[in-house]
Amino acid sequence: MTGFINYHKVLIVGLGMIGGSYAEKLSSLGFEVGALVRRQETLDYALAHGMIAHGHVEVTREYVSQFDLVVFALYPHAFVEWIRRYQDYLKEGAVITDVTGVKRSIVPAVQDMLRPDLEFVPAHPMAGRERSGVEYSDSRVFNGANFIITPTDRNTPEGIELVRTLGCILGFRHIAVLSVEEHDEMIGFLSQLTHCIAVALMDCKASEHLAEYTGDSFRDLTRIARINENMWTELFMENRDELLAQMDLFVDKFSQLREALAGGDTDTMKEMMRLSSYRRSFFDK
Amino acid sequence: MTGFINYHKVLIVGLGMIGGSYAEKLSSLGFEVGALVRRQETLDYALAHGMIAHGHVEVTREYVSQFDLVVFALYPHAFVEWIRRYQDYLKEGAVITDVTGVKRSIVPAVQDMLRPDLEFVPAHPMAGRERSGVEYSDSRVFNGANFIITPTDRNTPEGIELVRTLGCILGFRHIAVLSVEEHDEMIGFLSQLTHCIAVALMDCKASEHLAEYTGDSFRDLTRIARINENMWTELFMENRDELLAQMDLFVDKFSQLREALAGGDTDTMKEMMRLSSYRRSFFDK
Repeated sequence: MTGFINYHKVLIVGLGMIGGSYAEKLSSLGFEVGALVRRQETLDYALAHGMIAHGHVEVTREYVSQFDLVVFALYPHAFVEWIRRYQDYLKEGAVITDVTGVKRSIVPAVQDMLRPDLEFVPAHPMAGRERSGVEYSDSRVFNGANFIITPTDRNTPEGIELVRTLGCILGFRHIAVLSVEEHDEMIGFLSQLTHCIAVALMDCKASEHLAEYTGDSFRDLTRIARINENMWTELFMENRDELLAQMDLFVDKFSQLREALAGGDTDTMKEMMRLSSYRRSFFDK
Repeated sequence: MTGFINYHKVLIVGLGMIGGSYAEKLSSLGFEVGALVRRQETLDYALAHGMIAHGHVEVTREYVSQFDLVVFALYPHAFVEWIRRYQDYLKEGAVITDVTGVKRSIVPAVQDMLRPDLEFVPAHPMAGRERSGVEYSDSRVFNGANFIITPTDRNTPEGIELVRTLGCILGFRHIAVLSVEEHDEMIGFLSQLTHCIAVALMDCKASEHLAEYTGDSFRDLTRIARINENMWTELFMENRDELLAQMDLFVDKFSQLREALAGGDTDTMKEMMRLSSYRRSFFDK
């Protein structure tokens, strides 16, 4: 069995904000980080900023086959498509992992077609920024954040341990293990639903002058309304049934508060606020 | 005409988080700050921390009549009730202002019964914290925040200018003037609706373990779910029609996003996200 240090060469496929942050952090720790990207400008930026040791815009067997550990930081469909087209190039026995925000539609699709000598350990770093692109990379967003691994019965203890260690050295504070189903329910609620709320809230009114009157609460609730529409639309569509269920749950609770207000039922209003205050207290860092 | 410096003695009625922060800031600027509070412990705390020069738990003519400027930092009903019972004690020609988060139900009620020699200039500091009580006072929350004055035709330019200056020296960045109706609509949307969303979202699920999986978005959206249920229930009830309208507007937008997702209408989803991203850009500090 090999330890993490044997994986001193890491390939990152896709240098967006998350892939770039992985690259930056791993390079700073002394790993030899390679990258595959679509655009030459991305490569130039990452090389100029010391985020990677080398990289390419074309996928070749010669390059890909050098790496024992490959991190896919792509949109869901692009990740599955990459595996379909290029998995033949991967080094024998390589471990691959990802950063994809949905799991049910991705994990079986990849594991079902993967060469038997390869192992895919799915992971989801719960961190990000409102801006996309390599120039917004910042590995500090991982500090204190949560990292979720969603292994299946096709994973080995060694593969899971390797990715757990990856999460640790990237700086994540809490590393959780969930099933793909648990992950998608959790993320549908904690992440996707909150983005839907922020988008809908921000879409309610023209905002040119709102900023002159607002307090911090509106600002906080709409921070994530600045959103990469292509990525999030794909993530929402890939988790559609679960997200719809979470949206309905939220509207039920919201309507309950609305009805209490409409009917002047202050007891129910206060009860709902006491519950929210109690439950929020678990989130104090 | 007297300038602000002539109002070197200020009485704060109510030392909660906001009243305490007013007191702290004004004392630090050299004003002689007095206070009327309900509980002796509050008085002791404020005196021990140099937030006030003196204060009382009983309302007496002798004490109240010393002040040319009085700030009411009470719940809405308590403020109106105080005026009803004690306005007779106020010094002739005194200016009073407030911090109340609703205006339509408060401003006419107070102005209608106020002695003709007194002037009430309504104001709303758009700042606060999730915790209540004098011990959470912190005048730094005013820095960079918004301050709204809602004068009526009963106010004088001098009175409005006095309260504008008060907002300035407290550290607020932007001082806006709105009608009471505009204020309540704005606040129903920006502040009350956001608190309803946070409460409903936090009430959806038990949370003991959620914190292990969450990213910053859920944390940001639920910060204000930790809420003073008595104060906010009163504020909601005092702005009920407007808040209900804002809640309905939000649910309409949210349902529009839900239907787009349910129907796989990715064009509408992306359009809503582009709009929210554009509108949110005005809030970058």
